[in-house]
Amino acid sequence: MKKFLNSAETVMADALLGLAAAHPELQVDLQQKIITRAGGPRRGKVGLVSGGGSGHEPLHGGFVGTGMLDAAVPGEVFTSPVPDQIVAATTAVNGGSGVVYIVKNYTGDVMNFQIAAELAGDADIKVETVLVNDDVAVKDSTWTAGRRGTGATVFVEKIAGALAERGAGLAEVAEVGRKVNASSRSFAVALTACTTPAAGKPGFELPAEEMEVGVGIHGEPGRRREKMCSAKDIVATAMEAILSDLPFAAGDSTIVMVNGLGGTPLIELYVLFGEVAATLRSKGIVIARNLVGNYITSLDMAGASITVCKADSQLIELWDAPVNTPGLRWGV
Amino acid sequence: MKKFLNSAETVMADALLGLAAAHPELQVDLQQKIITRAGGPRRGKVGLVSGGGSGHEPLHGGFVGTGMLDAAVPGEVFTSPVPDQIVAATTAVNGGSGVVYIVKNYTGDVMNFQIAAELAGDADIKVETVLVNDDVAVKDSTWTAGRRGTGATVFVEKIAGALAERGAGLAEVAEVGRKVNASSRSFAVALTACTTPAAGKPGFELPAEEMEVGVGIHGEPGRRREKMCSAKDIVATAMEAILSDLPFAAGDSTIVMVNGLGGTPLIELYVLFGEVAATLRSKGIVIARNLVGNYITSLDMAGASITVCKADSQLIELWDAPVNTPGLRWGV
Repeated sequence: MKKFLNSAETVMADALLGLAAAHPELQVDLQQKIITRAGGPRRGKVGLVSGGGSGHEPLHGGFVGTGMLDAAVPGEVFTSPVPDQIVAATTAVNGGSGVVYIVKNYTGDVMNFQIAAELAGDADIKVETVLVNDDVAVKDSTWTAGRRGTGATVFVEKIAGALAERGAGLAEVAEVGRKVNASSRSFAVALTACTTPAAGKPGFELPAEEMEVGVGIHGEPGRRREKMCSAKDIVATAMEAILSDLPFAAGDSTIVMVNGLGGTPLIELYVLFGEVAATLRSKGIVIARNLVGNYITSLDMAGASITVCKADSQLIELWDAPVNTPGLRWGV
Repeated sequence: MKKFLNSAETVMADALLGLAAAHPELQVDLQQKIITRAGGPRRGKVGLVSGGGSGHEPLHGGFVGTGMLDAAVPGEVFTSPVPDQIVAATTAVNGGSGVVYIVKNYTGDVMNFQIAAELAGDADIKVETVLVNDDVAVKDSTWTAGRRGTGATVFVEKIAGALAERGAGLAEVAEVGRKVNASSRSFAVALTACTTPAAGKPGFELPAEEMEVGVGIHGEPGRRREKMCSAKDIVATAMEAILSDLPFAAGDSTIVMVNGLGGTPLIELYVLFGEVAATLRSKGIVIARNLVGNYITSLDMAGASITVCKADSQLIELWDAPVNTPGLRWGV
């Protein structure tokens, strides 16, 4: 295994040290393993907490900051954070108006955030949970009952974060988060498997010239393996899956993300985005806003995901609101 | 070869289509292959033009925008842009106060930008060139006489761009660019070779468990091959090369970039940054500002580079100035 690591055991802790050194505007609790904005909870503001296994950076720690998350709780690589850690984050960001959990639909995450919500309730902190399950590729998967949560998580964190920043109440913030999730669909393709530091070898074997169509962000199997084909044909497959699942109509406005899974360079993501834009244009669907880059990754996996969110004026206006995090920054 | 492409021949053009679709605030001339800010030249402002082979994205096209470049001229993958293309960009951004070329030190780039400068001179456009040659790894290399230009290019483009935005004159903008280059040193390590679309296979073979120490951004050989070792030891090698080359002293302020070469995930870059920060802290050198991410890449190469710029208050103040480009954005 060739990776920049000190040891497989310390990779998450070492990366948190680096995150803390790079971003003094964040507070990184190396003991409890929680990342919060510096300056503690803000009275009256609904707190936003997300988390999940490490290995998907910048998600989630890179999205802590003004206009987005109040706290992130990273687990070990591809491993859910534990309930105590989530409760610690909840307490750290609770300003008295409750806390919204943004949870990707993986069995471990769902269970641990649910236990944390119950423990927080015992401590009189109101919690609402937004479950993200936007991946149209498969119904059930290795680590999931139901659809997996992937790219839409970035959209939910950004848009719910903007509303929370404006002082909206707990129910309202959770509601807009659920609306974003309901309006979003994703599909991913892997060209290589990723290697977790603990395993030291690729999670699966992909023959030369084959790709995994519909892959999950931990390398979970997708719909099928196929021979490599052109960017245009790959995008056609992904867009067919996305657009047929949530009916999009001519004239709809969207927010679109073409996301690299960690080992794919930006030049290829722009090639993909060009094809996505052409597809949507041909259907009269408008790309109002977009992201092209690495936002929710799978360690060193070569591959990409496409996420499309049908976005009305409320969602676009919240998307445009200022955000100041390591991974997303504008308007500040 | 597994890449998201339509064909090896069209990768640059297809990526430009995607860039144009993603960033309507840029003007992408698909015919001449130049990327400029929308809105044409700005009267009285010194224009900043950079370019080089494609495959290093977001460099340079991703750094066009307010506070940074006025134009980027991408060549084909790992191939210099041609003089006519550079001249077209020069003409497109000339606001009457001259144009600064920021050129990474590779033989083809240097030659073509020099021819372009002469042609621009014939057309009564004053040009100053800032040559970037910050890579301490080797003296001469496959494609270079003298040191290669790498990570410092990002710093030069940002800082000279900020000064040009304020209306400084041609000589002054070039001077601050040269100062940034003179104050910066870089060193890179590759864990895998990259694959150009045209070649279809890795540019060199690296045995399992070996790394190329001091690699160039096209896969040019470095100082030596070594057995893989810990992030801490890799950083020690790189920082020894950097800090001994440009004497840094306790109390110095720096801008530091830990840059991914395209195939290395962010979690590993943060592990590296943690080690870089610890090294500098132990020497009393202050990291005033930093970047951690993919800024100057080598297609899909797994690897990372470290750049350290000794930055006085002038450079830090210009670094902090607003920038609004696809690849760097703050203060706006």
